[in-house]
Amino acid sequence: MSRLEKVEFTNMCMVCDGDRVVVIDRQKKDWPGVTFPGGHIEEGESFTDAVIREVREETGLNIHHPALCGIKDWYKDGTRYAVLLYRATEFDGELVSSDEGKVWWEDTHNLKNLRLSLDMLDMLRVFTENELSEFFYYQKDGKWLYDLK
Amino acid sequence: MSRLEKVEFTNMCMVCDGDRVVVIDRQKKDWPGVTFPGGHIEEGESFTDAVIREVREETGLNIHHPALCGIKDWYKDGTRYAVLLYRATEFDGELVSSDEGKVWWEDTHNLKNLRLSLDMLDMLRVFTENELSEFFYYQKDGKWLYDLK
Repeated sequence: MSRLEKVEFTNMCMVCDGDRVVVIDRQKKDWPGVTFPGGHIEEGESFTDAVIREVREETGLNIHHPALCGIKDWYKDGTRYAVLLYRATEFDGELVSSDEGKVWWEDTHNLKNLRLSLDMLDMLRVFTENELSEFFYYQKDGKWLYDLK
Repeated sequence: MSRLEKVEFTNMCMVCDGDRVVVIDRQKKDWPGVTFPGGHIEEGESFTDAVIREVREETGLNIHHPALCGIKDWYKDGTRYAVLLYRATEFDGELVSSDEGKVWWEDTHNLKNLRLSLDMLDMLRVFTENELSEFFYYQKDGKWLYDLK
């Protein structure tokens, strides 16, 4: 029995250095605001290689041993969109902004005061709370709802 | 730009109670041997709900807060096969075998002495080592190789 799904994979990484994290003010019309670096996983690419590449392209940092800590996912028009969420505490290199948006180190406790991307505070819970591994959007009675699981 | 992939999702869960884990002697021709419980993720189902359901169907245990700890994945004929790997330390219920195979509690240190499914000892490293999040198979010069990342 085949159970193939159509999936678009992306990733997002919380790069931590003690109490500070790397944020990016993403210049993107459909999902603007301050968020964590990340992007698309290419077909044929390993998930780990993809998040290392995306963080390097957007921040200049080379992360080591990114740890998968959750997934944000939702269905739309028969496709599952899956954002793999990683944490990284080991890295080398210097922080450099790219065309994707300005990057900087931010105090973790100050994130809530920034103009964050949609859902960032709830996603932050999946990044940081051991009991949570998924941010799942679903439709009910024509409305989008979500659960943290 | 569309970057849709065809994906078949499954899951596998290491249910831990101190130094012992739940194993299943899977009665399956294409992947026999002693392994951890798990199975297919249904279309539309959240990843977390899927692993809770599969563990309940195969072991009788209700796990709580399964934690995503890695992915095993490979490409074959244009499809990505992705096995989401979870650990669970909280559960209730009693262990009961199903048609899928006999289940029992096994001492973690004794796993290596069992007739394990293919790759189980290396997968165990992804389940247990914080620095590893992926077991990635790939083809090179017509041969299948894999990296732990």
